[in-house]
Amino acid sequence: MLTLYDDPISSNGYKVRLILLLTGKPFRVVNLDILNGETRTPEFLAINPNGKIPTLVFEDGRVLSESNAILFHCAEGTDYLPSEPFKRAQVLQWLFWEQYSHEPNIATSRFLRQHRELTEDVLAMLEAKKAPGEAALALMERHLTSHIFLVAESFSIADIALYAYTHVAEEGGFALDGYSAIRAWIKRVENVPGFISMSEASGGAV
Amino acid sequence: MLTLYDDPISSNGYKVRLILLLTGKPFRVVNLDILNGETRTPEFLAINPNGKIPTLVFEDGRVLSESNAILFHCAEGTDYLPSEPFKRAQVLQWLFWEQYSHEPNIATSRFLRQHRELTEDVLAMLEAKKAPGEAALALMERHLTSHIFLVAESFSIADIALYAYTHVAEEGGFALDGYSAIRAWIKRVENVPGFISMSEASGGAV
Repeated sequence: MLTLYDDPISSNGYKVRLILLLTGKPFRVVNLDILNGETRTPEFLAINPNGKIPTLVFEDGRVLSESNAILFHCAEGTDYLPSEPFKRAQVLQWLFWEQYSHEPNIATSRFLRQHRELTEDVLAMLEAKKAPGEAALALMERHLTSHIFLVAESFSIADIALYAYTHVAEEGGFALDGYSAIRAWIKRVENVPGFISMSEASGGAV
Repeated sequence: MLTLYDDPISSNGYKVRLILLLTGKPFRVVNLDILNGETRTPEFLAINPNGKIPTLVFEDGRVLSESNAILFHCAEGTDYLPSEPFKRAQVLQWLFWEQYSHEPNIATSRFLRQHRELTEDVLAMLEAKKAPGEAALALMERHLTSHIFLVAESFSIADIALYAYTHVAEEGGFALDGYSAIRAWIKRVENVPGFISMSEASGGAV
């Protein structure tokens, strides 16, 4: 059986739980407490030298990390990843964009607000992430104004990757009031057959 | 013919030039000057709303951005991307790691040092990127101590993506003296048949 090292506070982890649940792959979860240094122990660094969750371990011991790489691998051959080469490339474009332009601003702001004391330094970091975070949301809003889902008008791992932190963007200080196309897309994602919320996917731990 | 929007100062752009040259795909280049705002014009934003190079435009007008998504797409079906699913996932793991943990520290430090005045704010940014940049190099060093190339002991787009900014890491203030496995790997990459240097790939513009 697959083993997923995860922390229920992570939406990067939620991405992986969701694709495993949607595709019916049995897995067990080992929750590590990021805030308590449990991803930096010698034991876990021996599994993933990058010391990050989510990390997926296969039955034969092979290890895969990076949430979006895991998403792509688990979705291969399913309806959640198109088979046509250019559409696959468009999915990857969104996945890379998420990790470079969206997550470091919106997810990190949420983490700082929820788990760090709001010192002057932390407030300066939050301030620096405001404009690029809003720019990321504006780009999604523009795209979703004329598209039902991010790629090929069909729900895919691109939507999973972007839903993960967008639906909790307000917890990072990014109000979604002005983004009506994003709010409508969030509802469409939540109505996809088999959809499971972040709270449900982590057994109610968040 | 393919059209590549690029800036010769970008190693993200170099990744794409290199895979296009290695795979023999004819392309023309339109160089835009990032420093002069040429990626933020209405004309270019109509092509790529994210306002970033590299951006690849196909003959029929389809557009693909994000350097590593372009790498993956252009390498599909070639020796530069394994066909075995788990090896492909490992390539993607490195590509996502590069964009999240390597490029924002090492490439951004190089950009700041080369193109920004070293004000107190910029020096503070450089200082903040020092430890995560060294951690990224240490992770590569550890992996390359026991591997010839990053995935499957075979040169792939994972090596292209990591070579792009690692071989110029010193320009970002990251000395490679202590990283002998990385230095040996850089030489192996440069000895791959058909390899073209960043300077050659941009027609000597850098």
